[in-house]
Amino acid sequence: MTHTTAAPIIILVRSQLPENVGMVARAMLNCELIELRLVAPQFDWPHERAEAASCNATAVLERVKVFDSVAAAVADLSFVLATTARERHMVKPIYSPTAAIEYALSRPPGERVGILFGPEKAGLLNEDLMLADAILTAPLNPQFSSLNLAQAVLLVAWEWRRLTVVSADKIQPTKGSPLATKESLHNFYTRLVAMLDESGFLRVQDKRPKMVRNIKNIFDRAQLTEQEVQTLFGMLRSIKDPGIKPRRKKHASARRRA
Amino acid sequence: MTHTTAAPIIILVRSQLPENVGMVARAMLNCELIELRLVAPQFDWPHERAEAASCNATAVLERVKVFDSVAAAVADLSFVLATTARERHMVKPIYSPTAAIEYALSRPPGERVGILFGPEKAGLLNEDLMLADAILTAPLNPQFSSLNLAQAVLLVAWEWRRLTVVSADKIQPTKGSPLATKESLHNFYTRLVAMLDESGFLRVQDKRPKMVRNIKNIFDRAQLTEQEVQTLFGMLRSIKDPGIKPRRKKHASARRRA
Repeated sequence: MTHTTAAPIIILVRSQLPENVGMVARAMLNCELIELRLVAPQFDWPHERAEAASCNATAVLERVKVFDSVAAAVADLSFVLATTARERHMVKPIYSPTAAIEYALSRPPGERVGILFGPEKAGLLNEDLMLADAILTAPLNPQFSSLNLAQAVLLVAWEWRRLTVVSADKIQPTKGSPLATKESLHNFYTRLVAMLDESGFLRVQDKRPKMVRNIKNIFDRAQLTEQEVQTLFGMLRSIKDPGIKPRRKKHASARRRA
Repeated sequence: MTHTTAAPIIILVRSQLPENVGMVARAMLNCELIELRLVAPQFDWPHERAEAASCNATAVLERVKVFDSVAAAVADLSFVLATTARERHMVKPIYSPTAAIEYALSRPPGERVGILFGPEKAGLLNEDLMLADAILTAPLNPQFSSLNLAQAVLLVAWEWRRLTVVSADKIQPTKGSPLATKESLHNFYTRLVAMLDESGFLRVQDKRPKMVRNIKNIFDRAQLTEQEVQTLFGMLRSIKDPGIKPRRKKHASARRRA
C-alpha cells in the first residue's frame, strides 16, 4: 500500500445505522483507505449488522477506533475537513473532493488529514464544523445534492484511489498473443494489396494510392495482434480460394517431418 | 443542463432488485445524468420500491426505458462500454471511468455513448460483452474490488460530473462581507504597527522590519474580510484600552446627529 501516511482518515460522527458503517468500510477498502474512526455511534460497537453490510471489509472494521467527541477524534490530526451539502455561512475555505485529496497528498509525512461525515439525517452541527479547518463539498446537482453516507465516503475514497494509483486510463489487452509487429503488418498489407490488385479491386490507378491508404488505416486502428493478423490472412485466402484448407502449424510441421 | 448530447446513457442489464434501480437513479441525478435504460429487469416496472429508494429522483425514473435485450437497448448508440470487475480475456480496450467519460465528451453531437452494468450477483455475460466496443473497469483495490451496483454507477456518474461542471476546486467564502481591500488592510497594518511601536514590542530597530513583515504575513494568509479587519482592530483597541467601549456605527451616527 502506497502513500499510507498521506491517506485521509474517515471520521463518522454520531452515525445512526451500523449498516452504513459497514457500507462505508466496504467503499473505503475498495479504494484502499483503511483508517475509520467513529464518534459517539448511536449503536453498540462492534456490530454484526456492520460486519454483514461490509462484505468482509475486515481490514477496515478491525482497525476502527471509537471516540466520545469530535475533539478527541481529531486531536492527533493536522488538518480536518467537514463534509456538508448545505451552505453553512462560515468563513472557511470550501474544498472539492479532488482538492481535499490533493491537499492531503501535498502534506509532508507525519501530518494527517481527517474528514468528518455527519449523521445520516441531520449532517454535522455547526459546533462540529468549528473543529474543522475547511469544508468539503462535492459540486453535485444543486437541485439534488443529497448523497447517502456510503456514497459520500465513496466519492472521497475514489478521489484518493484515482489520484494515487498508477494505472493507465486505457489498456489494450492482447489475450496472450502480442500486438503484431510492424513487419508482420507490412507483410499482411503487401499480401492484401497483391490480392486486391489481382482481383481488380484497385484497377483505377488514380484512386489506388488513396484506397490502399484507407484500407491500411482501417486495420491500423484495430491494433491487431500477431494471432489476428494470421486469422485475417487465413480468412482472405479462404475467401479467394474456397477449396484450399487453412494451413495449420501442425500440418506444416507434419509436412516437414514427412 | 449542459453537455446533454454527450451524457452517457446508463443501462442496467437483468437487474435483480428494484431498490438498486432506485439507488442508481439517485446517484445519477446527484450527478445530472438522466437517461436510464433497463434490459429485462427481474421485477415489474415501474416499481414502488425503486421509487422509495430513489429519494425522489423522479426526473430519472419517469424517463426510464425498458428493453428485452441488450442488442435492442444499444441499437441507437455509437459506442458501448461494458463494466466488469473481472478480467475477461477479451481483446477489447479497457477504459477507466475517467477515460470513458473523456471519450464520451470527445465525440461529436449526435453520437451517444452507453454504459452497461450487469446483474448484482453475476455481472455481465460474455455474450453481453460481445455487444460492447470496450470494457470499463475502475482501478480499485485488486484484493477488494467488488462494488455494489449503485456505487459502480456513482463512480461513472461522478466522473461525468467532475469533468463537466465548471467549479472551483477551492472556494473562500466571505459570509456576506467582501474580502478586505488592500487599502483597508494597509490602514489596519499601519494602525497595528503604530500600536506595537507604542507598546515597545518593536523596540529592537534591527529586527523591526522583519518582525513587521512576519506579522503582516500572518494576516495576509488569513484572507480577511472587511468585517474581520474591523473586528480585529476592535479587539486590539479593546486590549490596549480595556475601559473604552467598542465603537458602533449606531453610536457614531447618533453622535453625528447630536
